[in-house]
Formats: sequence, C-alpha cells, structure tokens
Amino acid sequence: MRKPRGCVIDMSRFWSDVVHGLTPYVPGEQVEGPDVVKLNTNENPYGPSPRVLEVLRSQINDSLRLYPDPVSAELRAAIARRNGVSPDNVFVGNGSDEVLAHTFRALLTHRDPVLFPDITYSFYPVYCRLFGTPYEEISLNAQFEISVDDYVRENGGIVFPNPNAPTGLALEVSKLERLLEANSDSVVVIDEAYVHFGCESVVPLVHRYSQLLVTRTLSKSHSLAGLRVGYAIGHPDLIAALDRVKDSFNSYPLDRLAQRAAIAGIEDVDHVARSARKIIDSRRRLVKGLHDLGFEVLPSAANFVLTRHGGRESSELSASLRERGVIVRHFRNPPRVAAYLRITVGTDAQCDILLSALRALLN
Amino acid sequence: MRKPRGCVIDMSRFWSDVVHGLTPYVPGEQVEGPDVVKLNTNENPYGPSPRVLEVLRSQINDSLRLYPDPVSAELRAAIARRNGVSPDNVFVGNGSDEVLAHTFRALLTHRDPVLFPDITYSFYPVYCRLFGTPYEEISLNAQFEISVDDYVRENGGIVFPNPNAPTGLALEVSKLERLLEANSDSVVVIDEAYVHFGCESVVPLVHRYSQLLVTRTLSKSHSLAGLRVGYAIGHPDLIAALDRVKDSFNSYPLDRLAQRAAIAGIEDVDHVARSARKIIDSRRRLVKGLHDLGFEVLPSAANFVLTRHGGRESSELSASLRERGVIVRHFRNPPRVAAYLRITVGTDAQCDILLSALRALLN
Repeated sequence: MRKPRGCVIDMSRFWSDVVHGLTPYVPGEQVEGPDVVKLNTNENPYGPSPRVLEVLRSQINDSLRLYPDPVSAELRAAIARRNGVSPDNVFVGNGSDEVLAHTFRALLTHRDPVLFPDITYSFYPVYCRLFGTPYEEISLNAQFEISVDDYVRENGGIVFPNPNAPTGLALEVSKLERLLEANSDSVVVIDEAYVHFGCESVVPLVHRYSQLLVTRTLSKSHSLAGLRVGYAIGHPDLIAALDRVKDSFNSYPLDRLAQRAAIAGIEDVDHVARSARKIIDSRRRLVKGLHDLGFEVLPSAANFVLTRHGGRESSELSASLRERGVIVRHFRNPPRVAAYLRITVGTDAQCDILLSALRALLN
Repeated sequence: MRKPRGCVIDMSRFWSDVVHGLTPYVPGEQVEGPDVVKLNTNENPYGPSPRVLEVLRSQINDSLRLYPDPVSAELRAAIARRNGVSPDNVFVGNGSDEVLAHTFRALLTHRDPVLFPDITYSFYPVYCRLFGTPYEEISLNAQFEISVDDYVRENGGIVFPNPNAPTGLALEVSKLERLLEANSDSVVVIDEAYVHFGCESVVPLVHRYSQLLVTRTLSKSHSLAGLRVGYAIGHPDLIAALDRVKDSFNSYPLDRLAQRAAIAGIEDVDHVARSARKIIDSRRRLVKGLHDLGFEVLPSAANFVLTRHGGRESSELSASLRERGVIVRHFRNPPRVAAYLRITVGTDAQCDILLSALRALLN
C-alpha cells in the first residue's frame, strides 16, 4: 500500500496497517456567514418541517441524561409506515454515510469486486480501502449515463446512486429492474439520496428482489443535514447483517433528538413534497439561466446540476465565484468531472446571485 | 468462525464473511416509565447543565438544514482548553463507543494481540471480532484488580477502563505510569468513561507518553448519554490515525445539536463537579446500606457498584427487583461476574427504593 504524502516513518509507528493505505473522503466545506451563498454541499435551501422544530423544543429537558433507544424502534416504524414496508425491512444510521459504510462492510465485501461507476459518490472507493473490499469502477458512457448492461458480470455487489451524483442523471426503474433480474446472486444497493427531486424510487421492488437494498438520507429532502439520519430498506436478511455490524460498532449512533426529529420530519410528507417542488422549479429556472450564459448542463433529476462553460476553466470559475461569496463545488478528479462545476439548486434568489456573478465573470 | 445460533444458510447468503463471526454487544435495556427505577446503564441521575438546555433551545431553527462542522473544531477546542492540551491532541466521536471502535481499527490492530482484562467492558472483544484484531484476555487477580505487571509482554496494544467496569476498581496513576514506562512500543488506551467519580486521570501524562491515548464520554459525568459525544486525547500522531479512519467511515458523526450541547456541558465545570460529588456521597450511603443487608461490595470509584449477597443468586435477585420496578444489570458472563449485580448509583431516593426492595426480598 502506498504511503500518504508527507508521511514520515515516525508519525505512523503506532498505526494499524490499514491506516497507511487510506485516502479519506473530503467533504465540501462548511462555510457559514450571512453573506455566503452556499451551493456546494447539496443542502436544502428551505428549513425542516415546523413540526420537527416543535418536537425538538419539547425534548430539550433532563431526559437527555438517558441513552437513546439503541434499536430506534419508533423511527424504524415511522420509516416503514411511510414506505409501505415492515420495521424489519428498515435499518437506520448516523446519516446515509454510516449506513453505506456498514453496507460495504456487511454486504459488499466478497472475493469478487463490488462494481460502481467511475464517476459517482466519491465515498465508495474510500469505504473499499477501509474494509479491504475489492472494487471495479465501470465507466459511464459518453453521455455520462450508467449502462446497466455493463454491470451484468461476476461481482461481489453493485452500488450506485439514482439519480447518480455528481452527474444528476436518473435511470428508469425498468432498467434497474432489468439489472436486478440479471443479477440475483449479489447485493444491489441503490443509493436514493437524491430521489425526492424528480426520480422514481425502487423501494416497492424490495418485496420482489431480496438482493435489493435501498439507502436514503434525510439530509437533503427533509432539510436535516444537521442531524445525521439515514436509513436503508431491504429484505430482513440484509437488514440483519447491517444490525449485526452496527451492534459490533456502536450501539447508539442516533441520539435522542435526532430520532424524534426524524420521525416528525418523515411524517410531514407535505412539507417535504413542497420543498422538493420548489427546488425542481428553481432547477428548471437555473438551467435556463445557465444555458443563456452559454453553459452546458447535464439533465438533472437531483437538487444540483453538473455544468460547464466551453470558454472558461471550471476551477477558475469556482475560485472567482468564491471571491464573490458564492461557493460551488469543483472536483479535481476524475478528469472528466474536473471540467465541470457541481452547483446545488438554492432558492431562486440564491440562483439569481449565482447567475449574476457568472454573468459578470464571463463579460 | 462459528455460526450464530439460529442462523440458517439462506439467511446469510448475501453476507460478507465477517458478519457470520460477530457476536454483537448487548446494551442494557432502555426501559422508560414514571415508576421505573432505572439503575442498569450507569446514567447520571441528575440532568445536564442548564446551560446545555439553554444552548440547545437557541439552536432549534432552520440551520438544521446545514451539515455540521465535519471536524468539530469548536468542540475540540473546548475539550482542549478544559484538559490543558491543544486541539490537535483531541479526537471526537459519536459516544466513546465510536471513539473506541475507531481506536481498535486505527491503533490496536496488529500482528501481536491487544491485551485487556478478562473482566472489563464487554465491547472490547466485540470490536476485535469486527476488525479481525487478535486479542488476549488477562485475568484480574483474586481481588478483581488489574495487575499492571501482567501486561508487560509482547502486545499489539493495551486497553482497559480506569476505573475498570464492571468492577469499579481504580488503579493509581503511579501504576499506570509504570505500565507506560515498561510499554513504549504499542499504544496504551485508558478508557476514562468513569473517571469523574473519584479516580485520578492520566490525561496530564499524554505530554510525556506518545503511546498513551485517553478516551472519555460525556454520557455519565456530563449527563448527556442521550446526545452521544465521546472523545480521545493523545499525541497528534495517534489523533491523525483516528481522523484518517473516521474520514474514511463517516464525515459528520456528531450532529449540530450534539456539538453545541457538548461545548456548553464541558464548560460548565461546576455543574459536573456538583453532580459527581452528589453521586459519590450517594455511593457511600448505598454501599453502607448494602453492607447492612449482608452484601459484599467491591470498592468502587465509579458511578456503579458490583455487589453480591452470599445467600442469594444474583440472577434471581435481579429478576425479583425487576418485578418491583427496579432495574439493575446482571451479566451472565464471565462466570466470576455472574455471581454479582452491577447497580448504578442513583439519587438517594432511588437508592432507598432499591434497598427497601432488597430488604423485602431477603426477608
């Protein structure tokens, strides 16, 4: 395994072997300030349900001295009700990042490699290095699409987001079903972090395909990135593996407040639908604005767009926007993505500030 | 690896190999109810600092839509200030369980076995099975004490709580220093979950011993079990390994509310000292009450006692107490501990209910 840059022998004499080979995930910056237009980490520009805030206020008391429910029974029940499944189809974790980590450990680490796209959520290969999971990256096609036929081969599991990130492109359920039909001997994980913004869910398919696991997060759709709640839905046998790993790692990953807030958030279906609708409308408006400025924009079903301008380097645009208080995300890797900017869909007002800044920069 | 009980082949066809060999940790039950006297999970009977509740109330707003600070910079700074170290000596996690999990993964997994007592926090061997960490359990002596000389041997690390759990027995710092002097080539983890209740801390030694890592939790001393905050203090090289593993697993394990609450809790030193003092006083009173009923009690420096009655089976006493609404913890394993009950020190009123119930049962 290669040594991390700048690592001297002495620094690592106490480290377990695996630590040397890690290349940790780098999350988007959490810049805060009244004048910052933060469009870099796909947060929802609208706040959580008022019911969430109300429930939280009612929980700020001495009961915080007590441990949370380690099995999150009420939260699992709420998720089950909302998704037409039973609580033993549901696993919950500290954000979908923890859910995915346990999934790689519990269900995707086999002799054959797990397959995922070469352009996708960049945490997947990070998990693989931590868990020693063999993996193979499958190239997106020239239109940045996932071709499900490329995944029909020997594998130790398959994982990708739908819609994919950072492209925003969605796959039709019929194609995913074709993949499930062709792949019954290993787990297929569909990461639905962005599914609420105009993409069809495969959750109803868990009843028919015992190898299907769907992961979700409340960070974007439910405006609860600050509280770290994610979940997975699948056959009870898959959930049992996740439970076993979780209970060998941390009994109580979801605190009392997060559990209560998540229940209230999940139950306020209208609030979630309203903010998703507003974001979809703003996305349409943003895409038009970008087109008018000469940007190419991939067709997005998520709360972000991947875009580039033929005439200007994305890294340069990103830095210049930053000087104007607008933070977007530029990935240096992989090379095909480095040509683009990933921009979260904010409110119309935020999108207008972005578009004005871009207009000024392009003149 | 042995199969878990009741596991049929079909159930586990999709599981990664490691899952079959896990024997998950079983946390104490979270029974809640107005009439329950809950003395089974070492929670603090007093609520958190009023400043914690105040800060939390001020944070219940739309900012929950934003991700937390992934590196918990302010919280690390607060912990550093309070402990006379620098922020790069501090790692934070989702409860000390997660901190310990990352520690086993990042610093204790080597070719030589990690050493810990045969009677100790029962999560340690669970982590080892998850991470494939070789381990060796070292017997406590006849008085249930840790003899540091038993740990002077080839090892891949050493870990135990001080005071130890579930015995409650503390080791003097001079003995721990002797262990550190004799063991400079592998990491020594002192788990100070219960240090606030009458035991001296080794945190000041981290400046002299680069192999020393001290873990802590806010669950007991700071009455914040419900919010899941733990931390570790050690040499920056050790912290760097923990950071690398954490950032390969979950970028944001501490939510916005937990980070703010923890800072307020840590800063209210007087509140923590006051509740610890009350618990120490109640412990003295509880021990006397138990002695008066004919119980043997190990000398505890923690917020619980390990105790047994010569004339009565502990499992039977535990079940009978439960029928009377008093929940204590009885461990079936290891055999030497199965003879005892572990009872959390509650308020004087709670201890009195326990003692009355025991008195009734023994008559």
